[in-house]
Amino acid sequence: MSGTGFAYSSLFRRGLAEPIKPWAGLPKFNFVGGHNDPERIPVDGLIDAAASVLKREGRNLALYSLGQGPLGYLGLRQFLADKLERWRGIETNADGVLITVGSTQGINLINRILLEPGDTVLVEEFVYFGALAKLQKLGVNVVGIPLDRQGLRPDALADILGELKAKGVRPRYIYTIPSIQNPTGSILPLDRRHQLLALARQYGVPVFEDECYADLLWSGVVAPPSLYALDPAHVIHIGSFSKSLSPSLRLGYVAADWAVLSRLAAEQSDTAGALDQLIAAEYFANHFETHVRGLSAALAVKLDTIVEAVEKEFGSAAEVWRPDGGIYVWLKLPDSVDVREVVEPAAAAGIAFNAGPAWAVDPDAGKSYLRLCFALPSQQQIRDGVAALAQVFFERTGIPLQSSNVRRNA
Amino acid sequence: MSGTGFAYSSLFRRGLAEPIKPWAGLPKFNFVGGHNDPERIPVDGLIDAAASVLKREGRNLALYSLGQGPLGYLGLRQFLADKLERWRGIETNADGVLITVGSTQGINLINRILLEPGDTVLVEEFVYFGALAKLQKLGVNVVGIPLDRQGLRPDALADILGELKAKGVRPRYIYTIPSIQNPTGSILPLDRRHQLLALARQYGVPVFEDECYADLLWSGVVAPPSLYALDPAHVIHIGSFSKSLSPSLRLGYVAADWAVLSRLAAEQSDTAGALDQLIAAEYFANHFETHVRGLSAALAVKLDTIVEAVEKEFGSAAEVWRPDGGIYVWLKLPDSVDVREVVEPAAAAGIAFNAGPAWAVDPDAGKSYLRLCFALPSQQQIRDGVAALAQVFFERTGIPLQSSNVRRNA
Repeated sequence: MSGTGFAYSSLFRRGLAEPIKPWAGLPKFNFVGGHNDPERIPVDGLIDAAASVLKREGRNLALYSLGQGPLGYLGLRQFLADKLERWRGIETNADGVLITVGSTQGINLINRILLEPGDTVLVEEFVYFGALAKLQKLGVNVVGIPLDRQGLRPDALADILGELKAKGVRPRYIYTIPSIQNPTGSILPLDRRHQLLALARQYGVPVFEDECYADLLWSGVVAPPSLYALDPAHVIHIGSFSKSLSPSLRLGYVAADWAVLSRLAAEQSDTAGALDQLIAAEYFANHFETHVRGLSAALAVKLDTIVEAVEKEFGSAAEVWRPDGGIYVWLKLPDSVDVREVVEPAAAAGIAFNAGPAWAVDPDAGKSYLRLCFALPSQQQIRDGVAALAQVFFERTGIPLQSSNVRRNA
Repeated sequence: MSGTGFAYSSLFRRGLAEPIKPWAGLPKFNFVGGHNDPERIPVDGLIDAAASVLKREGRNLALYSLGQGPLGYLGLRQFLADKLERWRGIETNADGVLITVGSTQGINLINRILLEPGDTVLVEEFVYFGALAKLQKLGVNVVGIPLDRQGLRPDALADILGELKAKGVRPRYIYTIPSIQNPTGSILPLDRRHQLLALARQYGVPVFEDECYADLLWSGVVAPPSLYALDPAHVIHIGSFSKSLSPSLRLGYVAADWAVLSRLAAEQSDTAGALDQLIAAEYFANHFETHVRGLSAALAVKLDTIVEAVEKEFGSAAEVWRPDGGIYVWLKLPDSVDVREVVEPAAAAGIAFNAGPAWAVDPDAGKSYLRLCFALPSQQQIRDGVAALAQVFFERTGIPLQSSNVRRNA
């Protein structure tokens, strides 16, 4: 439709993101994106939930925000208050929770009320790409906290806070994913939680806790109480329905002190859709535990499948960070490998994976890492995709040289 | 939960909006807010639509954006392309439409790609409060275009564009609501549409067309083709499901040249909820015409009721701008009345109305006007509420002195 009208490009303000390209569809082997398992969408349960909640409350759709004010649908907030108490040890109520458009909006709103360009924030050295990219775009100074297989290291955090204080810098927050860390999949032990909170209090730095994967733990795994449960006055807590139910539903939440919640709500322009809120609340009010247990069990099977495939195809070249739950696995290849060189050839072969550098405060420190999401592909696609990925890696980097018992030839 | 933790107030960045207050519920007589008629929510139709679309496509909920890319749910974009062609004369297709989180997000995104502080934009002198408030917050210079009972006056627009050009100012856009203008309720005639577009082309200024009420016309009323239909290369078109279906659903859309659409999508962080999109598309694909006809007929009855009530209670003191469709009526009181003085006493009496000054580029020019939304209250609430409002006005301003045939006493 272009050509006869404006040269619109001359009208746009400067500094915009690159325009999107026409949609090209999903890759054949899709190990990115936080997608979930299509087999585990509770279609019949959602249909029943839609019928019952619309029959009971559907007329409220005539009102903005269902006539229930700026925090979101009351039924969803009640469900969340109950879930947070029973599962995460958090004492709150429906007025202590703000519904957001996915946890993405929660992150944006929290950044909006707390951050200005030049501010400093602390995050785990390997960290959720979306949170990191937003901070970089805001012109914030991001400092990585070293982590190990148990999550962030309080000893290292103490050093960083001390050094920053010596320079007169008070970080605006410590962002952490303590329960199924993204991308490493660890759960922060209780003693480290207490140490982290003690440091936060000592240095007067709020903790920004992201628990968007905490509902998906392997059978037998128990996470300690959330940081917000342990110290509600110093923690801002966010979560999501994207992993526990559906990422297409744009539903997340913030639980925090009213001083914070009332600011976040005032800055919120977009709000979550009513049908997303009504139907998710109705379904989860009756089926939360059975649903997340079933989903977690299915994901655990896929984790086994992808770990087996990685061990078969990459052999000893890949070090697996086996997660305690969730939908992804973090892999370390030999230091000589730079995964950035493999992203495009893999895409050309129909394979998408997350390259470590985008998930690392110091991109070079992440250069030999990759993240593979395993929830969307079938077990067969996992096996075929990991085999195809190993072949692309070998062709590009010479690693892995050995797959199963077969030596590769270039 | 405050008191033992941070003084959070010292951590917030400057320039934030005032925090929200705890929700106090809706006023007894609610003539504000763009709410709709609870009796006209098609509850059974939505339940059926939810069942059929979830059975067919529910598994896609496992993917971000239903696996259909950044423009939104394909079925909804297909419905919109079809509706825009049949009802508004617009030639487009599913890839010419971007789904937004209500038309509010559409306005925000368009402002984001086109506006910087100090820019100039043109709007009708009486204009949708939300659009005006956003422009003021952005630090944009807003110039009002005089309007009459037929909408904006192209002769006045020509003068303004000429004067601005003489000063070296090229406005960034002309924002207009040509089909059921908000707040005056008029439909811009075809000849004025052509004149407006000729001026836009002559001065190189895009037209930003907001058609969020265009689906709700009284029986027998026909709107000319949309501005976007008449000149797709120079117009950005937005619309909404808030008035035609439900404002709690956060669903709107933009139809525009790909040069614009691809920029808007790139700046879009929040996206519309999948269940809102799926269920609205499924319902409207089969029931759009019958639903909006039934809703419009019900609204026309309420319009008659409120106009009768205003005539009865305010007598000749109120000049009624009878709308051609929609959910509100614009009233003019004598010049001596300043409605701002009545907002708080009315609220104390349980009555909410929109004061003209907030809907006017020059607040003082709107001081004797008010907007009453009539979709939410029942006919009896309309009668009782307008009577109560007249009493508050009389007590505060001495007008209306006469109601029905009875002279009021102070």
